[in-house]
Amino acid sequence: MIKKYMFIFLTMFVLNITADEGMWEPYQMKSLQKELRASGYKGSVANVSDLFKHPMNAIVSLGGCSAAFVSDQGLIATNYHCIERSYLQFNSNAESDLFETGFVARTKDDEKRSAPGSRVYVTLKSTDITNKVLDGLSDDTAALERAEIIEDNKKVIIRECETSDEFECRVRSFFSGETYKLEKVLKIKDVRLVYAPPSYIGEYGGEIDNWMYPRHTGDFALLRAYTAKDGSSKEFTKDNVPYKSDSFLKVSAKGVKDGDFVMVVGYPGRTNRTITFNEIKWDLETGFHETVKFLKRGIELMEQNTNSSDGSMLKYRGLKSGYENYYKKISGQIDGANNFKLIESEKIKWRNFLDFVEKDASETDKNYLSELLNLIDEDQQKSLARSYYGNSALISQAKRIYRNAVEREKIDAERKPGYQDRDQERIINRIKSLDYSFDPRVDRAIFEDRLIVYSGFDSSLRRATYSKLFRLDESKEIILSKVDEIYSTDYQTSENFLQMFEMSLDELNDSQDPLIIFAKDTFDESLAYEKESEETGAKRQLLKSKFIGLLKKYYESSGKQMYADANGTLRVTYGNVAGVSLKDGLIYEPFTRLEGIAQKHTGIKPFNASGKLLNLIETKDYGKYFYKPINSVPVNFLSTLDITNGNSGSATINSKFELVGLAFDGMLETIIADYKYIPDARTISVDSRYLLWTLEKLDEAENILEELTITNSIY
Amino acid sequence: MIKKYMFIFLTMFVLNITADEGMWEPYQMKSLQKELRASGYKGSVANVSDLFKHPMNAIVSLGGCSAAFVSDQGLIATNYHCIERSYLQFNSNAESDLFETGFVARTKDDEKRSAPGSRVYVTLKSTDITNKVLDGLSDDTAALERAEIIEDNKKVIIRECETSDEFECRVRSFFSGETYKLEKVLKIKDVRLVYAPPSYIGEYGGEIDNWMYPRHTGDFALLRAYTAKDGSSKEFTKDNVPYKSDSFLKVSAKGVKDGDFVMVVGYPGRTNRTITFNEIKWDLETGFHETVKFLKRGIELMEQNTNSSDGSMLKYRGLKSGYENYYKKISGQIDGANNFKLIESEKIKWRNFLDFVEKDASETDKNYLSELLNLIDEDQQKSLARSYYGNSALISQAKRIYRNAVEREKIDAERKPGYQDRDQERIINRIKSLDYSFDPRVDRAIFEDRLIVYSGFDSSLRRATYSKLFRLDESKEIILSKVDEIYSTDYQTSENFLQMFEMSLDELNDSQDPLIIFAKDTFDESLAYEKESEETGAKRQLLKSKFIGLLKKYYESSGKQMYADANGTLRVTYGNVAGVSLKDGLIYEPFTRLEGIAQKHTGIKPFNASGKLLNLIETKDYGKYFYKPINSVPVNFLSTLDITNGNSGSATINSKFELVGLAFDGMLETIIADYKYIPDARTISVDSRYLLWTLEKLDEAENILEELTITNSIY
Repeated sequence: MIKKYMFIFLTMFVLNITADEGMWEPYQMKSLQKELRASGYKGSVANVSDLFKHPMNAIVSLGGCSAAFVSDQGLIATNYHCIERSYLQFNSNAESDLFETGFVARTKDDEKRSAPGSRVYVTLKSTDITNKVLDGLSDDTAALERAEIIEDNKKVIIRECETSDEFECRVRSFFSGETYKLEKVLKIKDVRLVYAPPSYIGEYGGEIDNWMYPRHTGDFALLRAYTAKDGSSKEFTKDNVPYKSDSFLKVSAKGVKDGDFVMVVGYPGRTNRTITFNEIKWDLETGFHETVKFLKRGIELMEQNTNSSDGSMLKYRGLKSGYENYYKKISGQIDGANNFKLIESEKIKWRNFLDFVEKDASETDKNYLSELLNLIDEDQQKSLARSYYGNSALISQAKRIYRNAVEREKIDAERKPGYQDRDQERIINRIKSLDYSFDPRVDRAIFEDRLIVYSGFDSSLRRATYSKLFRLDESKEIILSKVDEIYSTDYQTSENFLQMFEMSLDELNDSQDPLIIFAKDTFDESLAYEKESEETGAKRQLLKSKFIGLLKKYYESSGKQMYADANGTLRVTYGNVAGVSLKDGLIYEPFTRLEGIAQKHTGIKPFNASGKLLNLIETKDYGKYFYKPINSVPVNFLSTLDITNGNSGSATINSKFELVGLAFDGMLETIIADYKYIPDARTISVDSRYLLWTLEKLDEAENILEELTITNSIY
Repeated sequence: MIKKYMFIFLTMFVLNITADEGMWEPYQMKSLQKELRASGYKGSVANVSDLFKHPMNAIVSLGGCSAAFVSDQGLIATNYHCIERSYLQFNSNAESDLFETGFVARTKDDEKRSAPGSRVYVTLKSTDITNKVLDGLSDDTAALERAEIIEDNKKVIIRECETSDEFECRVRSFFSGETYKLEKVLKIKDVRLVYAPPSYIGEYGGEIDNWMYPRHTGDFALLRAYTAKDGSSKEFTKDNVPYKSDSFLKVSAKGVKDGDFVMVVGYPGRTNRTITFNEIKWDLETGFHETVKFLKRGIELMEQNTNSSDGSMLKYRGLKSGYENYYKKISGQIDGANNFKLIESEKIKWRNFLDFVEKDASETDKNYLSELLNLIDEDQQKSLARSYYGNSALISQAKRIYRNAVEREKIDAERKPGYQDRDQERIINRIKSLDYSFDPRVDRAIFEDRLIVYSGFDSSLRRATYSKLFRLDESKEIILSKVDEIYSTDYQTSENFLQMFEMSLDELNDSQDPLIIFAKDTFDESLAYEKESEETGAKRQLLKSKFIGLLKKYYESSGKQMYADANGTLRVTYGNVAGVSLKDGLIYEPFTRLEGIAQKHTGIKPFNASGKLLNLIETKDYGKYFYKPINSVPVNFLSTLDITNGNSGSATINSKFELVGLAFDGMLETIIADYKYIPDARTISVDSRYLLWTLEKLDEAENILEELTITNSIY
């Protein structure tokens, strides 16, 4: 064991891309056959290269999280933390707090509905449409025209694709717009809560253990997808029936052992591994630190302005925990960048790339690159101020509704994406979500604080209408008097906003409500800003695709295969169960044990295990989930899988495509891996044996255990 | 590796006394022959049973720390943290800060003198004198008489023993006064600083890493003992010559490997392993928490009232770091008591003991036991208040000098111990120490705060003279006005106090100085308090010795050998180099590496390695200290040795009696071991290879390396 980890520190600084690295697109798996076999994969490579074969077609997205079908009746396994807002918070109130109690539907009738807009997305199709998106363009097309053409092309593509409102079609950019793909998904609209453990299991360790190891979190939950009897996607109705997926994953009661091959198929959200050095440098030296400041203040504001008696604390629980999560992540990235000397190593890598460009690139490409770097540098100067003016959910809602009313005057095809017929439902759902995530008093306190910071930026960096309407160059009192006025609006609840949503543009223009007037007064400028940013974006996109072209050539010149940065599309990562040493003298074991839960237990949240759980552990009631090498039931395990945000809830599967865990976290020490692959980075999965043990021993959920296909094979 | 640690959590709660356990008296080693061999010991058992054979006669005490001779010219190795106050702080000032620079005496002439009273104690004799101490006593002797007889007996014994002021004789109580031993030590008065690394090595990690692992502290330093040419102990003079010890330890350049036998011979200060359950319960449920409160406030007071500009911060650096150290220790004991369920396990153990007593003890012994427990319970009620009135170093000095003047009126033999001729030097040294560890402004701020807390105790728990003189039942302003008066004294410096020391009792009684008047006004009561506490003490001592008698019988009845609680006398502990897992999923490796220093480096104290050190690490300049299994030079290592405070600086030796490290710390997780032996407790030693590497590579101290006898054997 020591031998195995001994050289880790020494190799940490060595830049090398290994076979395991990567968030691969399924089609790339075929060319990784040798590496897959070397990692211990025994299954079919064809299957994991094909989106529409098992196990790939058992994998779904929840939008921001990944999940997998685990029965032929639409049962879905995902992380507890993926369902907190739309399923637990939505179904909790002062009388019944599902966070406290957990939830087990003993029959299908017991299942709980989800917050409006809760969806399961099943990928139906993925096609390369680069030519279609870029149709009518040349490298010389002016930026704004370029943006408009791309937008128009995309709209046509999407319109043709979305044959019914059951489907959603998305044009995804790969390699910063070097490639485009069309993704068609089935949008399942009726998703219900089947099972969630109490929070003392589902988020055991809470923010304290978040991004940390050793970990003892039962980060699992079960949902069920429903459709109409004819298989079409319908909003909740009693008549809906469980969705029949093309395949589902069996669940392993024997799990993995140290060194085993594992794989995750999921929807990683975003990485920054193919960006320019100028961007890395900005993020590391400025951006991260500014974000930390922004988040820290946001958390303080929520702490100071919410309380449990009026329900505001519960309403901001989700946002606050999101801020805390992100705060910890960015702080870890700052530390990781220092520890792994990212700036230094990336500088060297960049210099080598520039040498290659100098030697092998055309003059045109060289010019593109230098134009790109200038554009990036300029834009960074402006980015800071931008985060400080839009922090009022009240104003954002009004502006969105006003904009929607403007767009609705046009025929659908000419509307701005986001305001087309296909988007109306999402706008309504967003309004409805105010019910459980918005309090005007808190919203205003946050906005005021941000606005005062905004007033401190140079006026050239601020929006002119904001400067003028809030009189940002005058005293704090004067600035806040305008806020007073806006927040005296009649529109303060989702009900009000739904009324506003129904109003025509004329009605809105005639309104004397200060909020609507403000939305109207800032409208033209918002539009102009949008145009400007589209123009920059289009220019940047072209230049970046040229940069990626150069980068690909550079990679090829050193015999390496390249994968696109994560972009929310389905990716495959494979690797092995393995512990790691990230600090000298300290080894993270690959598995944690039930006993570790008792060890951490203090009785105080987030370490408040129940008496029943502690008793099961104390009496060693391991059942058939006992794993001899650790002399207990495994709770969480580590693997070399390469994941990021969005992968949460992904099934961790073995060579036989059995679910052996659910990936739910990375480690703070290596979270900088979003910027650069780190061989020592580890994925933390909750072990399938802990899931099954909890269902059986703690929650006695016989019905669920019967529905799952549980395997007892050891490979 | 995993296998090895796997069951640790599970066995943690099992009460079992293993062979390795214990802080044994040398004479006990003979009966542990089998256990020693089983641990891998290959040396002579006779040698480690005899105080006056090698290696035992190479071991010395610094008073509060342990140390060992490492050359035939009086060179002594100990911990850096043992020499901070009397050697580094004493020789540092605004111009030359030895903490920053470290110190290497390139020749003997360069060596630095130490603070007054700095001593090395060489044990010359240890004799059982129980009969002499208890001569003239029966179990029925009244408590106060008992106390007086014991005190008188001790005085006679000491007087006969201390044939010159080179020697110090101490009567040591073992098993709470069940046994007494006379210890005669040579008191070496001229000790000089030879070598200390910079603080970024000697206290790398500082308070943050204190009691923690993984650790990377170079906690080593070298002193030299000098005597007169005739071998007698003399205060510093240029004519003194290096002391020739009876033996010294060779230093190993090859160190230990995982699993190796190791031994520590040193002077552990105090443990509480043979106390009653009533005492454990009080400490765990009340005492620890009160101490934490007291220390925390003390640290705050020093932080608020000292600054670097007037030197006060430097003056209180030692006291503050002592408080911080103790604070962390007690906090760890609180946690450890919870984690290891101490109250629960000790309750069971106690119940078994009481069963034994009920069944096998005489009525008299039963009565003694119940009397003891009553006495303990009563005394605990009073103990809290006591810590809050005596926190003025100014007042303490004055009271000690006044008392000394009173005692000096008597002939030496009749004086109270602590005020005899033999004690005068220590009193003077204590006064002199004010120069570098006292500031009247800070002293007063601390005293005032404590006094206000004291005023909050019920008057029955307070000293009557304090209640009266400070008018403790009145307002804070009134209380503090008396403090004002006392601190307006003319005696504020060591110079002043040395003058006070020279005054006769009559002169003191005639003085109009408010400080001296206060010392005089409280004198009679102090004496009465002393008598009362002696009476209780004598009673308690008798009862405890009876309790110990019962406990010994109880141990015998279950076939176990018992060792006395640590009491500052020479003890032997043996065990093996071994990592450990104290938290599920986390393994502490047995060794840390040079690279770990660079990993922890932030540039900010206490993680501020120098460029030179970092460069040596970066370039892997390991020299002959490279240890293949960890691919680096070991910095610190873990072993199963059973140590406590006072063991600091102890040489960790191998079977061949070579110095392979210096023990310097335990771990917070198991620091509760002072109350109960914990099999998973580990001692942290700094590795001899890191000491030698630092001397050679960083400090280029050729002269020191030449003086040491360095061995390169591997066993």
